[in-house]
Amino acid sequence: MAIRFLLTNDDGIYARGLSALYQELSKDAECLVVAPEIEQSAVGHAITIARPLMVRKDRKNGNFLGYAVAGTPADCVKIGICELAGGPVDLVVSGINRGANVGINVLYSGTVSAATEAAIQGVPSMAISLDTREEADFTAAARFARKMAAFILENPLPHVALNVNVPAIPEEEIRGVVVAKQGRERLMESFDKRIDPRENTYYWLAGETELPVHEDDESDCSALKRGMITITPICYDLTRHDLLDGLKTRVRAHFSGLGTTVVLKGE
Amino acid sequence: MAIRFLLTNDDGIYARGLSALYQELSKDAECLVVAPEIEQSAVGHAITIARPLMVRKDRKNGNFLGYAVAGTPADCVKIGICELAGGPVDLVVSGINRGANVGINVLYSGTVSAATEAAIQGVPSMAISLDTREEADFTAAARFARKMAAFILENPLPHVALNVNVPAIPEEEIRGVVVAKQGRERLMESFDKRIDPRENTYYWLAGETELPVHEDDESDCSALKRGMITITPICYDLTRHDLLDGLKTRVRAHFSGLGTTVVLKGE
Repeated sequence: MAIRFLLTNDDGIYARGLSALYQELSKDAECLVVAPEIEQSAVGHAITIARPLMVRKDRKNGNFLGYAVAGTPADCVKIGICELAGGPVDLVVSGINRGANVGINVLYSGTVSAATEAAIQGVPSMAISLDTREEADFTAAARFARKMAAFILENPLPHVALNVNVPAIPEEEIRGVVVAKQGRERLMESFDKRIDPRENTYYWLAGETELPVHEDDESDCSALKRGMITITPICYDLTRHDLLDGLKTRVRAHFSGLGTTVVLKGE
Repeated sequence: MAIRFLLTNDDGIYARGLSALYQELSKDAECLVVAPEIEQSAVGHAITIARPLMVRKDRKNGNFLGYAVAGTPADCVKIGICELAGGPVDLVVSGINRGANVGINVLYSGTVSAATEAAIQGVPSMAISLDTREEADFTAAARFARKMAAFILENPLPHVALNVNVPAIPEEEIRGVVVAKQGRERLMESFDKRIDPRENTYYWLAGETELPVHEDDESDCSALKRGMITITPICYDLTRHDLLDGLKTRVRAHFSGLGTTVVLKGE
């Protein structure tokens, strides 16, 4: 049976980054595209529950390309795996995103959430992003996506999404590949207040200045800036396990004083 | 200076759970409500960047209640802290949600993402949810929210959101308070395929059956079912730190063979 990949993104089914990914990955596998009909940047892990998902078969350049879904990247992965693939999927690849997904930005990223959704479903996955907002050349990133796909098939981590970021520099200038942790970098945000012609107030989320954060050298932000391709394993257990014990002690001290029963392990 | 809380939710500014929260918390603090104009369930950590945020002052029962935002819960926290509060916020409280936010569900939750957004901004926060889909009595949960607010002010964790879930049983039957980790419970999802009057295909995300997962006794799902209030500290660093070393070894072995430079710490 042929190897089957499910491809998605958050820039929408007509995005060039997705085409580049499809062209390269279909050399090794049967690729089913299930992607949002329109751009879904910054939707995070949103899913569609209050209205139905419209799905239509989409063709591009006369070739069958896949399904356009009026929903989010996480919707595309859910419906792709559960319904449209009609059989097992070996790998979900989300991208190639126009713009890096590193640091705090990862939380807002539809691209990364698509990969996380696959991990929840138990399917190996990766998100891949190119560090540019310009109309860039996706060729090097697509070639690396193919190498990564081979890597994941050889080293499957079914419940982990890999978040890959590629610097937008000539392929020969890329300094290498590094396993990195998610950094703390985020934008200094502000709101630009305006009044509409009917005297209503509205705001644009603005602010593109990076907050000065001391990133350690092993963070994705820092390594990407130094010209490296970064790979970060991403989880969907959001528990701060390191804080559980300290919090138990504090909760017990506080609530016992109030006469509230505090239940700890083994009691 | 008075203590100031920012209240939000994902059920929308007219939701009863938010009113109950406001009534109880305004006994101790000046409460500014900044909440979505309409229901935003399952939007996760989505934010609005491609269009402006419409914001209007909203009054309820003749009293000034706050701001209704045509956006997501995370938008409300961003604009609330950065712009509308006009000064420091001591605590962000998101809820009271109609429906538990435990297990995998936490990833999709607008309620929890609002609290996480506050943690990113460095403001102590909690999300609070009541385990029912019915039109329930929020009184006990609101009373507990007030106790939790006092707890957080005494034990501030500026970069951690606390995710609180309250069982929907009579207050005297609640078995106690427990610090729990996020469980693995999720719904077994399916898609219900239909054809519209114009012969287009569409799908409803269906499936309310819980997947059988072995939850250990310390998970939020399991403790909540046993009648306990659960408190889970939530992070926004999604790195699987436990996998970094193993992944470095595998990446080095794989990519070195391909002639790709692999950069590790200190090299």
